Amino acid sequence: MSGKHIRINEVVTRDGLQIEPVFVPTRDKIALIDALSHTGVSKIEVTSFVSPKAVPALSDAAEVMRGITRAQNVIYVALAPNARGAAAAIEAGADEINIVISASESHNYANVRRSCDQSFDELSSVNRLRKGSGVTLNGTIATAFGCPFDGRIAPSRIIDFARRYRDAGADSLTLADTTGMANPVQVEQLVIAVFAACPDFPITLHFHNTRGMGLANILAAHHVGARSFDAALGGLGGCPFAPGATGNVCTEDVVHMFEQMGVDTGVDLQSLITQSLRLPVLVGHDTPGQVVKAGPSFARERPETGR
Amino acid sequence: MSGKHIRINEVVTRDGLQIEPVFVPTRDKIALIDALSHTGVSKIEVTSFVSPKAVPALSDAAEVMRGITRAQNVIYVALAPNARGAAAAIEAGADEINIVISASESHNYANVRRSCDQSFDELSSVNRLRKGSGVTLNGTIATAFGCPFDGRIAPSRIIDFARRYRDAGADSLTLADTTGMANPVQVEQLVIAVFAACPDFPITLHFHNTRGMGLANILAAHHVGARSFDAALGGLGGCPFAPGATGNVCTEDVVHMFEQMGVDTGVDLQSLITQSLRLPVLVGHDTPGQVVKAGPSFARERPETGR
Repeated sequence: MSGKHIRINEVVTRDGLQIEPVFVPTRDKIALIDALSHTGVSKIEVTSFVSPKAVPALSDAAEVMRGITRAQNVIYVALAPNARGAAAAIEAGADEINIVISASESHNYANVRRSCDQSFDELSSVNRLRKGSGVTLNGTIATAFGCPFDGRIAPSRIIDFARRYRDAGADSLTLADTTGMANPVQVEQLVIAVFAACPDFPITLHFHNTRGMGLANILAAHHVGARSFDAALGGLGGCPFAPGATGNVCTEDVVHMFEQMGVDTGVDLQSLITQSLRLPVLVGHDTPGQVVKAGPSFARERPETGR
Repeated sequence: MSGKHIRINEVVTRDGLQIEPVFVPTRDKIALIDALSHTGVSKIEVTSFVSPKAVPALSDAAEVMRGITRAQNVIYVALAPNARGAAAAIEAGADEINIVISASESHNYANVRRSCDQSFDELSSVNRLRKGSGVTLNGTIATAFGCPFDGRIAPSRIIDFARRYRDAGADSLTLADTTGMANPVQVEQLVIAVFAACPDFPITLHFHNTRGMGLANILAAHHVGARSFDAALGGLGGCPFAPGATGNVCTEDVVHMFEQMGVDTGVDLQSLITQSLRLPVLVGHDTPGQVVKAGPSFARERPETGR
């Protein structure tokens, strides 16, 4: 359970805000992203180029993407559900397109009105669009650990989807526990299986804390070698299927855990906390993050366990 | 990360209620304990025999202890801060006395107005009181993973305290992360060290979710062989030093995680959820538990990961 240099992909302005009932003003989204750009996170998932009717909270996707001030060493990602969204994201200046296909047919259809095969077919169009542009392509498998409609997903299907993404030219893969159904043993098993099936295909883990297991799942994934994690400031992004349940794993809680464990994240915890404390004003409610309320366990500069 | 037959020690009516501003009526405490007696938990920490001035929420300790209907196979525990409390607990019919001494001098003094040495001296009186009665003695080391006043605690001090408890005749030991400061690497290291120093001395882990790491810490402890865990229904028991932070690790969330991992807890999750859903009426506020809001990830009877 040791390791250094894990990477944090901040998703608060995309996955954190997309189901919020209030529309966070464009300038506030841009200010938040600009502040996060200087915290040490590796990537920021800025927004999603989806139908404004489907996700009104992100109807300003192009304005936000164009409005941010880029920092060196940060990769600015845009989610796109299809080729049309990918074209708009590239046009607006995204460094990376994050394509999402659900492992579950029901969830994929609910999300994008396509079968999984139709979504993979469209992937070749996305790949053509970004060729020569320098834009990288990440493939996300949503509901990879379970689906609220279809239940369990066979690991063999996840491995098949991972290979299809890789063979279609994706540069990296995200295994997403979209509604927080994963458990630590399942995480270990699936991460090991995907590593074995697709060596040298970089993997990010995306967990929600819907059933309280978010940090335990990150710990389990880290234990078997995962080093890249999505997280949302304040733990925003509660699941519409589980009112009152928490959202994405909370960035500052994830960073705090790793730093306390002696694992270097490269992220400045205090800067995250400063930004997280501003979230309740933006979204109009308290956030599920814990470290903003309790403060860090111990200051970083002291040894892990004094003797 | 596999293993079977972990044991749950339910502490909601003691650690969960002790800082609640409302006084939960004695009959409601008794009804809750009686219901919990049939969920499959191994122990129930019923109450604490402390000064009613210090902890008004538990001023009915003797009435509760005498009023419950005992179930077979459940050990009914009472916390006692000193010999006087232990005598009252034995008098009221406790099966086990849980003595608490903080690893930190400042915390022990704040708790019981004694030095740690004075508390250990008193342990011999407690031991004499219970000899021949069949009452067992558990020794808790509070602030074992850090103290809100004194910061880090040397692991060598925890090992020393564990040996002192063992040598004084305690039957078992609890390592308590009183204010939720532990991290998974620290947990692994300390549990391994205490196992090595005191083989055959049964150990329970007591975690709070104050900084979101509760289930991750349980996972880490389980990973190195711990099989007995304190938890509070609904995750009650927030820390007075961290307003808004969550409390004890939540029993139903712990049981859910283990069951999803394929680890047998012997506890009926649905019964816990039924009881947990009643807590907001008792305490007058929402509880931090997640599984009551989201429901279990998957039904238990299906295999862990279908192929």
